[in-house]
Amino acid sequence: MVGLEARPRPGASAAETAADAVTEHCRALIAAAGPACVAAKPQLACFERLGWPGWRALEEVCAATREAGLLLIADGKRGDVPVSASAYAQALFGSVDTPWGEVAGLGADAATVNPLLGGDALEPLLTAAEERGRGLFALVRTSNPGAADVLDQPTPDGPLHERLARLVAERAPRLRGESGLSGMGAVVGATEPAYLARLRELMPASVFLMPGVGAQGGSPEELGAAFSSDPASVVVAASRSIAGASNPAAAAAELRDRVWAVSQTAAR
Amino acid sequence: MVGLEARPRPGASAAETAADAVTEHCRALIAAAGPACVAAKPQLACFERLGWPGWRALEEVCAATREAGLLLIADGKRGDVPVSASAYAQALFGSVDTPWGEVAGLGADAATVNPLLGGDALEPLLTAAEERGRGLFALVRTSNPGAADVLDQPTPDGPLHERLARLVAERAPRLRGESGLSGMGAVVGATEPAYLARLRELMPASVFLMPGVGAQGGSPEELGAAFSSDPASVVVAASRSIAGASNPAAAAAELRDRVWAVSQTAAR
Repeated sequence: MVGLEARPRPGASAAETAADAVTEHCRALIAAAGPACVAAKPQLACFERLGWPGWRALEEVCAATREAGLLLIADGKRGDVPVSASAYAQALFGSVDTPWGEVAGLGADAATVNPLLGGDALEPLLTAAEERGRGLFALVRTSNPGAADVLDQPTPDGPLHERLARLVAERAPRLRGESGLSGMGAVVGATEPAYLARLRELMPASVFLMPGVGAQGGSPEELGAAFSSDPASVVVAASRSIAGASNPAAAAAELRDRVWAVSQTAAR
Repeated sequence: MVGLEARPRPGASAAETAADAVTEHCRALIAAAGPACVAAKPQLACFERLGWPGWRALEEVCAATREAGLLLIADGKRGDVPVSASAYAQALFGSVDTPWGEVAGLGADAATVNPLLGGDALEPLLTAAEERGRGLFALVRTSNPGAADVLDQPTPDGPLHERLARLVAERAPRLRGESGLSGMGAVVGATEPAYLARLRELMPASVFLMPGVGAQGGSPEELGAAFSSDPASVVVAASRSIAGASNPAAAAAELRDRVWAVSQTAAR
């Protein structure tokens, strides 16, 4: 809401003024909720709909995230054939060499990716993440009701999301850090707790990025089975329930405390 | 290559100069190859890696495409949970209302979308396409070798790509035009001709967007089974084989003639 008070700069287009307001709104949210969070996860769609001023706002929000000492998770669910996946890797956490100098991408610490196109399409993103110490969260079982249409389709390997979990697990050793956790992570919705134990079994080292808490109906207390023995093995993502709260700082702190309590009970 | 001759504007960053060069390169390509084409398909990743100046270049290339009388296919393979899919629909071919006025998106005639997240995630894009007379191309069987990892997984409905084809076919009536063809289309790689007859059977009305010709090894002469009785039922997409040709106009015209010949033999 803060952002909506922004005053237009002289000569600015609607897109530019709106993008400035979005930047201010996000900066205020980072200042308020950031201390209770480990990461910020900008949803790229919300910036893209404001055109190039929106992308500029995205870059400013990414910079503010890093300045606040938060991890930056670029949430764009990108996925494409290898030549295009390479370009996405440059945009998200790499850079591109041009005749006029190097152009840096968003500098994300991690990005959400769509694994539908298979292993060779993930490879350029994985290679870039490996080289630069970044992470990927591949969609395994999303939080929307319609996820069942495709992700729960039966296959000889179990439901399709288990096949995707195996793709993640096979690649996890390449992004494993000193803690033993792997930055080859998975997006696992918090709305279907019944799947969590099996997905953790299939992906023992991967960090789970878990949307669906709050506005989408998921509850932290149901997520125990998602944790490995390391309480850092789960990142709970909440957007509307924090950004829309009358007191975002308090909403974020309350969620942090609930997730922490679950992690301590779950992790052995 | 044309673009690489661009001269930096005073004070411009590397990203801005490179983005200007990309715009000029694309404008030159549209001028040269456009007369032999029905559409231009900018790959969003290639613009995003140049940051906000890249997105501005994308907007300029979209405008140049429309000015040339070509259809604009925004190739970003977007797919996300419903709330984010709505924002992508605004970015691709809708608009967003802000307190400072309406902000228009890219104005694409069609967009490539990723159906992994299921029907409810496609719905906001489909609704926006329906309202505005636009089209969607859902990924069904992509042209990369690794596509087999997930898209060819066996399911009770046949390989997963046949399940996706059914999702497309169920939605095709909503985007059907006067010709009988539907703008609820499918991305079907030209690299696996053995799948084409079955996919056309499952999606009788859908336009197929077919990448994989040229640089990826597909040949127009192998695509006969992809056509319905309407020669407009297939859009063959070629990028590197035209953009990288010494004479893009001749390369595009040759490909057009070969595709046309196949369409005339195939369509009954």
